[in-house]
Parts: sequence; structure tokens; C-alpha cells
Amino acid sequence: MNLLLVADIGGTNGRFGLVEFDADKNRANSKVNYTAERQITLKCANYPDMATMIKACCSEFGIEIPAYACLAIAGPIENGQASMTNLNWKFSIDGLRDQLGMKTLHVINDFASLAYAVPFLEDDELITLYDSHKSSADAPIVVMGPGTGFGMAALVPSQNNWRIIPTEGGHASFAPTNEKELDIKAFLLKEQNHVSVENILSGGGLVTLYRALAHNEGVEALPYTPADVSTKGIANQDPLCREAVLTFCDVLGEVAGDKALSLGAKGGVVIGGGITPKLVDLLPESHFLERYKNKGPMTGYVSDISIRLIVNDKAALVGSAAWLINNTESLK
Amino acid sequence: MNLLLVADIGGTNGRFGLVEFDADKNRANSKVNYTAERQITLKCANYPDMATMIKACCSEFGIEIPAYACLAIAGPIENGQASMTNLNWKFSIDGLRDQLGMKTLHVINDFASLAYAVPFLEDDELITLYDSHKSSADAPIVVMGPGTGFGMAALVPSQNNWRIIPTEGGHASFAPTNEKELDIKAFLLKEQNHVSVENILSGGGLVTLYRALAHNEGVEALPYTPADVSTKGIANQDPLCREAVLTFCDVLGEVAGDKALSLGAKGGVVIGGGITPKLVDLLPESHFLERYKNKGPMTGYVSDISIRLIVNDKAALVGSAAWLINNTESLK
Repeated sequence: MNLLLVADIGGTNGRFGLVEFDADKNRANSKVNYTAERQITLKCANYPDMATMIKACCSEFGIEIPAYACLAIAGPIENGQASMTNLNWKFSIDGLRDQLGMKTLHVINDFASLAYAVPFLEDDELITLYDSHKSSADAPIVVMGPGTGFGMAALVPSQNNWRIIPTEGGHASFAPTNEKELDIKAFLLKEQNHVSVENILSGGGLVTLYRALAHNEGVEALPYTPADVSTKGIANQDPLCREAVLTFCDVLGEVAGDKALSLGAKGGVVIGGGITPKLVDLLPESHFLERYKNKGPMTGYVSDISIRLIVNDKAALVGSAAWLINNTESLK
Repeated sequence: MNLLLVADIGGTNGRFGLVEFDADKNRANSKVNYTAERQITLKCANYPDMATMIKACCSEFGIEIPAYACLAIAGPIENGQASMTNLNWKFSIDGLRDQLGMKTLHVINDFASLAYAVPFLEDDELITLYDSHKSSADAPIVVMGPGTGFGMAALVPSQNNWRIIPTEGGHASFAPTNEKELDIKAFLLKEQNHVSVENILSGGGLVTLYRALAHNEGVEALPYTPADVSTKGIANQDPLCREAVLTFCDVLGEVAGDKALSLGAKGGVVIGGGITPKLVDLLPESHFLERYKNKGPMTGYVSDISIRLIVNDKAALVGSAAWLINNTESLK
């Protein structure tokens, strides 16, 4: 029996889980259980770096640091170096493994982990937002969505397995598609010379949308948090917050269509991240689906692609566990 | 000895080539010659459909219809059906094969074919537009660029081979990034409810940019063709044409960066298509590279990705031949 530490570490929270893995039992059983039975969540802001947070997590669990771990992090990983975009944390993966005395440490992008989880999720962990009644088993699936940032990864079928392509598509330039959105982009371009999808589609983006709408309507913006804007928007307690959340849904539809086109994702669009499950009841009232399909001569192309929403907020832990088990020789 | 028909059929021209392929000789020789020795170009507009154009092409070559062919076409292919977006031609691949009495017919997207050619191109068939002095052999390469439309495909390393992902990224929404471009998008949104990258970055897009700039500067637009705008712009014979071609280069830089982010294309950006080689001398004068790198927190990410330009206008024929030979069992 091996104890595996899995984690999903975003810009705000670090979720950690322990998976009990028995290679012998699993070899005999075709269905592997990737679910972490014990889970805790820590605030990233309380720790100076990743090593300190992992030590604190193991102390909370009341365990020694395990030999095997997989961390899904919000940010790019390259040449063995991990960068957490929204935390200013950088570390060498091998350095962290040695510092913690682990045998195997994988660090993957959080949306790569979410993408890797998709084939292992149960039906009740996904909601169908749009059903094209078509499927294309040999085509890429794109997994994306807003949380602290806007994550994105592609899942490409590859010889009875999946290849994950981590991307930074959330940092591509925001494409406004009506007068209101053009005014929002014009306002934001006065503050910064690159306005990305993530600047709109993220927790901070909700506040940005609210501020831009307030400015463009000549109203004073209140010092709202992302939670204020979403809560007041959903409950229809503030007309500008309402407009902000509906605009957010519209842009999400536009971006889902754009990224499906850019990835050739005929295998499906899967939306993950913490924000969309909260806004799901607003989607029919917004232009989410209309904007998703508004692609000129490619309207038919995107109309053939279904959209699902991940509603299990621990899905990245499932992906991390599956990744760790399937990519560690000594666990096979 | 087999005679292979290869083709690159865009919205305007169909280029055809004949490749003499000797499987025995090639098995003995590690380097396969994918170049079509005999080539002709036909105007698509002169033919009602694909079958008629192929018959006319073989008649021009003075040959019977060959047993093996690969057509690279501008448009999506799905479930055995090919659609040529800018010509309104649709056909079933198996139907066309049977109608022409061919043994094997492959039909692939033109940028998929261009992408497949990249590993087989010689150094003098590519120009380096930006050298990051870094490379990432295991990461995707994105191939994209303006011609009659804006094509795009990704090349994903897969177990000592390449997997091609055809995409329709040119149809994603255009993201304006300064006041001039916001005004261009605002003008175009009055004419159509989806303004794509391709609406700007294509032959027709040159005229669209010229028209939009003329409108926004209160000048009457002349009935220029794409060739007029590019010729007068390059020669600096008309200030609005000049502004159109420079804006075109700026947007191309922005889009190259956006697509590199969306595909996680750490393996490189390769620009193909007919227009960029004509504008290459203008790139340093434009904000092409500045816009490519203007990605906020991901400026470092894109700065690590080199950009090359395909200057062999027959590269898609090389890709078609390589695809046909490597994906046809009876040719191996």
C-alpha cells in the first residue's frame, strides 16, 4: 500500500488529498479509484513557498512526507521549473523533491490535471451545457475555464491514451464583440497595454468588468470583491453587478467557441474552474450559447461540438492521482 | 514506380504536382524526395467541382488519372466529407475516389499539409523572423498564416512521429488591441455580427482593412483589389494602403502570439500562406514583433518561442506527398 499526496494549488487555495493506492489490488481490478479520501484546503497566502506549504499540509494530515506526490499548479512548467503566475512562486521540481525527501514528485499544470481527469470523471461530475448530439472520438478535447486565473489545456487522443497539451490560452488577447465590450476593452487599454481573456474571465475579471461598466455608464464603482460582484449579480441586487455577471457569461461563450476553433476541438469543450458552476443558472439568460455559435461560416463547426461543465471541484485531484499512478513506473 | 498526384487547393488556385515514387528505392534510401517534379496551377473558379478540376489537371499533365492522390484543401474535413469554405464546394472523399477510379485518395486540410511539410523542409525554404535561441523538441508547433483565408494547424510530437491537429483558428474572433483597431472592429461589426481573424488577416482582409481605415479617417475608399492594397502599400504609393499593410503586420504579430499561447506551442511558430512572404520586408517597420511579445505576464513565455516563415510556396505539395507516402500501407 502506498500513500500518494495529490494537490491542486491555485492562486488562492491549495487543496490537498491523500490517495491510498495498492498496485497489486489495482492490477487485478480494471477500475482504479483515483479519489482522495482525506482532503484539506490551505490558503496559499499563509505560506512563503511551496515546500513550507507541503510540510504544513502533511503536519495537518498527521503524516510523514509521502514518497509519491503530484502537484497540479496554476502556471506554466518548463524544463523542470514551475512558475505560479498569480503567487510569484518559482521552484525547481527536482529541487523541491530532494528538499522534501520524496522519491517521486510530479508537477503539472492545473488545467492539464483537470484535462487528464475528464476521461475518469463519473456522469454526475459533469453537466451538459450544450449537447450537439454528435461526437468525434479521435479529435482533441479542450478544457478551460475561469477561477483565480483562466486555465486551459487540450487532451489529444494518442494510441489508446491521451496526450495532454498544457496551454496559456487565457493570456491571449480579449476579443470584444459588441459596442459594450469594445468600450470595456478601450477603458482597460488605458490602464494596461495587454488586455487578456483572463483579465475578463477570472475572479478579478468580475471586478474589472464591474469597474469598466461603471466607468462607461458614468457611475461610481464601489470597492467590491469578486465574491461581492458575483453574489450581488446572481441575486440581482445591483444592476451593474448583474450586467457584469451576464457580460462574463457572454464572453465565456465567445471564448469557448474561439478556443474550440483554435484547438480544432471536435472532441468537445469542457469548462472547469471555480466560477462557472456558480453562474450556471445565469447562462440561459445570458447570450452564452448564442455567442458560442456566432462564428460566421464556422457556426456549423462549433454547433457540432458539445459543451460540458465540471461540477466536481475536486476533479483536479482525480487528475493528479491518475497522472501520478499512470506515469510512475514504480507504482505500476 | 508509382505516380502520385498531390495538390494544394486554396480558395483561388489549385496547384497540382506529380511525384514519382519508387517504394523499393525509398526503402533503401533514408531520405525520401517528396518534391513534385512536374507542377501546374489551375484557377478554381474555372471549374464547377473538384472532380472536373482533377480531370482537367490530368489532361493538362497528359496522364491517366493516377491510382494514388492526396489533396490539401482550404477547409475542414469531417467524417469523410470535405468542405471548401471559400468556394462552396463539398464532396465525399470516398465518393470522389470512386468517381475518379482511384485506389487511394487522401484529402487533408491545407494547413495540416503545410504543418506536415515543416519537418521535411530544407533550411532555405524557411526564414527565421524571430530567434529565441531556445527550443523545445517535445512541444507543439503551430503553423498558421494568411492567404485567401487564414489557415492554422498544430503539429504535436507523438512517439517519434508527428500528429497533425487541423484547426479553424482563423475563424476565432478578432481581438483589436489599440484605438485604431477598436475603431476597425466597430466599423466591421456594423456589417456583420462576427468579425474573425480571417476577416482581417487574408487577401480580402487587406481590402477590408483599407476600407475600414478609409471610413474611419473620413476618406472615400477606392475599389482596390487585395493586390492593389498590398502593391501600393509596399511601394508606399497610397498612405491608406500603407497603413493597411502595416496594420496587417501588427495584427499578424498579435495573432501569432495569441495562437502560440492557445496551443502551448513552445515548439515554435511557423507562418505559411501566400501573403506574408510578400510583406516580409515591412515586418521590421511594423509592430509585428512588439505585438507578438505584448502578452503581459506571458511575455517571457512567447519570447522563448521562435517564429519562422515558409518561403517555398510549394511547401503544401511536399506535405501532401509526405502524408500520402507515410499514410498509405500499399506504398510502404
